[in-house]
Amino acid sequence: MTLDSTRRRPVIALAMGDPAGISPELTARLALSHRVREAATLVVIGDQRVFEEGARAAALEITLPVIEQESHSKSDVSEHSFIDLENLDPTQIVKGEATLDGGRFAIENFRTALELARDGKVDAVCFTPFNKKAMRYAYPGYDDEIRFIADVLKYDRKMREFNVLEKIWNARVTSHIPISEVASHITQEAILAELELTRQCLIEAGIREPKIAVAGLNPHAGDGGTFGREEIDTIAPAIARAVEHGWNVEGAFPADTVFLTALRNGFHAVLTMYHDQGQIAMKMMGFDRGVTMFGGLPFPVCTPAHGTAYDIVDQGIANVGASEQAVLLAARMAAR
Amino acid sequence: MTLDSTRRRPVIALAMGDPAGISPELTARLALSHRVREAATLVVIGDQRVFEEGARAAALEITLPVIEQESHSKSDVSEHSFIDLENLDPTQIVKGEATLDGGRFAIENFRTALELARDGKVDAVCFTPFNKKAMRYAYPGYDDEIRFIADVLKYDRKMREFNVLEKIWNARVTSHIPISEVASHITQEAILAELELTRQCLIEAGIREPKIAVAGLNPHAGDGGTFGREEIDTIAPAIARAVEHGWNVEGAFPADTVFLTALRNGFHAVLTMYHDQGQIAMKMMGFDRGVTMFGGLPFPVCTPAHGTAYDIVDQGIANVGASEQAVLLAARMAAR
Repeated sequence: MTLDSTRRRPVIALAMGDPAGISPELTARLALSHRVREAATLVVIGDQRVFEEGARAAALEITLPVIEQESHSKSDVSEHSFIDLENLDPTQIVKGEATLDGGRFAIENFRTALELARDGKVDAVCFTPFNKKAMRYAYPGYDDEIRFIADVLKYDRKMREFNVLEKIWNARVTSHIPISEVASHITQEAILAELELTRQCLIEAGIREPKIAVAGLNPHAGDGGTFGREEIDTIAPAIARAVEHGWNVEGAFPADTVFLTALRNGFHAVLTMYHDQGQIAMKMMGFDRGVTMFGGLPFPVCTPAHGTAYDIVDQGIANVGASEQAVLLAARMAAR
Repeated sequence: MTLDSTRRRPVIALAMGDPAGISPELTARLALSHRVREAATLVVIGDQRVFEEGARAAALEITLPVIEQESHSKSDVSEHSFIDLENLDPTQIVKGEATLDGGRFAIENFRTALELARDGKVDAVCFTPFNKKAMRYAYPGYDDEIRFIADVLKYDRKMREFNVLEKIWNARVTSHIPISEVASHITQEAILAELELTRQCLIEAGIREPKIAVAGLNPHAGDGGTFGREEIDTIAPAIARAVEHGWNVEGAFPADTVFLTALRNGFHAVLTMYHDQGQIAMKMMGFDRGVTMFGGLPFPVCTPAHGTAYDIVDQGIANVGASEQAVLLAARMAAR
């Protein structure tokens, strides 16, 4: 039994994202992707009519068998399936616009996917892109995915967003806070907690001995204390403690070249001190092709890094590459 | 007379930088560059013996006529020349190391070049790369080039470092200060002063109607005030005032995509709020090929963006491209 269950492909709940952009098209493309099919069994969550619209946009023919949300168990799901919440009539969709209806649809799909994962009915959660404005119409307290996941699951352990682009991961000590508050959040404990979580997620993703580069906080990593002392007083001692734990961690590297250093020297991840330190570099490297992974939960949650692409809705030209990478990463992590 | 003097090529003092890296080789390569020769007349400042070593490293044959620092006037200089300070015996150079001797040499050359420009004996200043550690051995108060220039020239007007990579310029509101102090320096006045100086330098560089993109300060440019209010309270009003002046200025754009936005939409410059916001993007785009320009002085000061490259000293493989771009930019600006 155990052997059999570890060998089966992971079951991944795929929540349909914002209906006004390319999410329906991406969902249909994922359901027909050979690479996805080899790695995972999808349970698509949304409205079948919207899914069919997406397939039409992609010029694909596909119908998935419908299963019931309540009754199914993981081991029953042997092929891609659909949980039809019948929650959006496609004629109601205003293409290319963030709307309350679109937000409600995406929120309900995502919530259902998270609950299935919480209840052990799927191994991981993926979703096609959301529109934040629409999410807020439907759920005014929607700050970001992490806050929403914590709300839905009443989960109070540390969760973090990781950005994954090909071979490099980006984790960060602080995220969606004002720049004026960043420095006061940089503590040895915060850095060590991020390093631990990053190591753990990398190991779950199949990296046996994760090698992590840590960015400095200040220009030129403080230039020996000239432009700030956090590197000397906080970051270096935290790295020393990480090394004492036997972790492969180096730094603090100047933020403006830390990604170049990491790529050149085979680091698996860069830990940045604040949001844009990592995001600027990742976007310049083409992070639109990358994956956002939410770590720290009992199950992986992954999504493509790009947005809803309202400008190319229904043109049939949406690139499914990043969405595929999201499902493949979730499958790899869920299989462990 | 006036016509004649505006038609002559600008005379540029080229201060030899740190002698332990590729600076001597770059200096020799510049003196033999056709593109440089067409655009400017160089007065190289340093020690002829070190220059000859540089030429040897580059496998080039070149000797420049020596002129006197005190006696020459700009109109006398019709070909590349050398001011020989006889300030470093090449046998004393420890290759690949930051030393007091190396710092003294670079400091003296740079100081002489700045004084020549101040006295109207040259039109602009360029220098090959310095090593900051060596500069500090020789001049303990050496924080950065701007501080040094202000010290030497007793100049108290606003000076700023611009980074120029191909078609895009980067200016910043704050530079070498700790991240913890950035937000308190973001004022409407500071932003407007930078915009004005950036416009002025771009116009001097030959851009008739400069178009400038302004970055936000916080993640997602504050996301409508959710992660900081500086975009709403300070940056937007400053941009509105700039537009009232008739300046072509837009923003605030999220920092993680502002350079991509600028490149796609024909902006000439990006004004960032702090050092790494611009530097991360510029380095990812290959800023090592770019130029650093110090604006706000009565004359342009330019240098290649890359460093002393101690690791490839004397190998004869130093790429002179960025140094050429530095001289060409200084010449273009000096010609106006």
